Amino acid sequence: MEKIKSSLNSIKELDFEAMNETKRRWDSLVKPIGSLGLMEEITIKLSGIYRKTKFSIDKRAVLVMASDNGVVEENVTSSPQIFTRILAEKMAKEMTGVSVMSKSVKADVVVVDIGINGNVKEEKIINRKIRYGTNNFTKAKAMTYDETIKAIETGIEIADELFNKGYNILGTGEVGIGNTTTSAAVIKAITNLNIDDIVGKGAGITDEQLILKKNAIVKAIDIHKPNKDDIIDVLSKVGGLDIAGLVGIYISGAKNSRPIVMDGFISQTAALCAIKLDNRVKDYIIPSHLSKEPGAKFVFDEIGLRPMLDLSMRLGEGTGCTLAFQIIDTSIYTLNNMATFEEAEIEKEFLVDISKDEEK
Amino acid sequence: MEKIKSSLNSIKELDFEAMNETKRRWDSLVKPIGSLGLMEEITIKLSGIYRKTKFSIDKRAVLVMASDNGVVEENVTSSPQIFTRILAEKMAKEMTGVSVMSKSVKADVVVVDIGINGNVKEEKIINRKIRYGTNNFTKAKAMTYDETIKAIETGIEIADELFNKGYNILGTGEVGIGNTTTSAAVIKAITNLNIDDIVGKGAGITDEQLILKKNAIVKAIDIHKPNKDDIIDVLSKVGGLDIAGLVGIYISGAKNSRPIVMDGFISQTAALCAIKLDNRVKDYIIPSHLSKEPGAKFVFDEIGLRPMLDLSMRLGEGTGCTLAFQIIDTSIYTLNNMATFEEAEIEKEFLVDISKDEEK
Repeated sequence: MEKIKSSLNSIKELDFEAMNETKRRWDSLVKPIGSLGLMEEITIKLSGIYRKTKFSIDKRAVLVMASDNGVVEENVTSSPQIFTRILAEKMAKEMTGVSVMSKSVKADVVVVDIGINGNVKEEKIINRKIRYGTNNFTKAKAMTYDETIKAIETGIEIADELFNKGYNILGTGEVGIGNTTTSAAVIKAITNLNIDDIVGKGAGITDEQLILKKNAIVKAIDIHKPNKDDIIDVLSKVGGLDIAGLVGIYISGAKNSRPIVMDGFISQTAALCAIKLDNRVKDYIIPSHLSKEPGAKFVFDEIGLRPMLDLSMRLGEGTGCTLAFQIIDTSIYTLNNMATFEEAEIEKEFLVDISKDEEK
Repeated sequence: MEKIKSSLNSIKELDFEAMNETKRRWDSLVKPIGSLGLMEEITIKLSGIYRKTKFSIDKRAVLVMASDNGVVEENVTSSPQIFTRILAEKMAKEMTGVSVMSKSVKADVVVVDIGINGNVKEEKIINRKIRYGTNNFTKAKAMTYDETIKAIETGIEIADELFNKGYNILGTGEVGIGNTTTSAAVIKAITNLNIDDIVGKGAGITDEQLILKKNAIVKAIDIHKPNKDDIIDVLSKVGGLDIAGLVGIYISGAKNSRPIVMDGFISQTAALCAIKLDNRVKDYIIPSHLSKEPGAKFVFDEIGLRPMLDLSMRLGEGTGCTLAFQIIDTSIYTLNNMATFEEAEIEKEFLVDISKDEEK
């Protein structure tokens, strides 16, 4: 717990001076003020994170947490548990969605076995296995309190290492059959959201399985009574090792003053947990896309962030982060290279600031 | 009118065989069927457009129609009319938003003076001026029926030339002070949408000006009684030369079996017109982003398409197209490079097809 605490304690406020300077730069460019929307907002946030006005996200990776979930015993998934290991191995061999998309946008993929239920046969996968999958949470706590702490700290450690190696941005990814079930359970335990709003069909289950999935979540919460004011308790009872590892990535980003791009539903769940641990973590998170998983939009409202992409994707793995990297690249390039009114020799007064008007 | 008619007559149905083949390719890749959402849908559509399964959008441009609108006399804009010419010139000098963003994503920008109210001092701008801006449509028809046809045909001709030069995709762009007013007027004339839903503050006007803007539109429609079943009539009475030119770009895309990426509100208005002229044009349009202009979402519903990006952008110029080019690049790369279940040696049966279930 010491590493989590000390990490959270070392989070700094964003650098508002750098943010203001970037805002002034945007406002000096030949366009109506604020008219590039999130492109402006994201780069302003990045200035606050990097604590400077010139920065790049050229060295980047999607950091994938792979682990298994005992709740698959309840017939709540479309794929068998063995797929977690197989997909993680194929991912490391550059065969899956996130591997290929990362290559396309010049990002690396780092896969961590944080709790796959089986022995991994691919040496590119970092072995930080905490246990061979979690327990079926309809029967027992998913894992112990200490294991949960260890999983979060593992996420912190691996992300710390990557930042130390010079990565300037990380995206969150996961692979873990059953992790939309654990995510929905964690969300249900923490928020007042309706179970029908947050439980979806994940990678693709039947209507009958959807009922089993809801029942499993309701039962687990009823048995374990997770304490929503103790995120570790919630994660240990109804969460997963992958989600806990992702929580650690967000904490590391905030600790190291580096941005974390958030993928879809499972990554959102981890973000929700990290933000509940310390609200300042939110300042270091950049959402990518709105997952097709129906609960995604409700979680966005809950954490008060908004995505830039809406592609009805529901693959996970960190795929959404790769597209976001490209948009951030273009946003930074635009910030640095558009002409100012002065350079273009145009009188700025003509272009009105709509943003003030909207604040009324 | 002959060129418009012959262009529309030469539009082919999409190549469903190529589309099915691309769909089968996606379904063979190591992921749940349909789980890459719009990435899959867009590349399937592109297969139908290009009539083959291997294609690239490596040679691309944003084609910008620049023209002036007489309705600016009614105090409906935040910038003076002279800004159309100034911004078009700065755009050609690679200083504005679309120029810089295009450079970032390796796209060209082609600027056409289709009706700027002034003499352009920048030789990179293609001079196809039809008239020095339109009339104030609260007092007279914006332009003649023949001028409107000529503007559409100009759009067709320029896009045809670019496709002949080897461009394999074009994005729509515009610059024209007052063109959210003309766009809203055209939308109002064609659809049953509510005036309060489709008239927004554009680049940034005051609440008082917003009332003037609505009044100008209502007055123009009342005076000219545009015939919604005759798009040329609508455009000539309450439209603009830029919108008409953009209509031509969409028609050229459909005629040449090439995709047109659609930017924001003004580009949507032109798409609505082109689709009303011939519904098959829609098959060749790929939307980019949801503009912050409030009417944008209603026009998306009207034309039955959906955007991939939601960045609250309201700059126009074609800026949204540049971000879409990147996402399309990654989608094509992913389609071509992800491993199949066979290559990955995984049994496909495990991963369920959710899309069938959803159709129920």
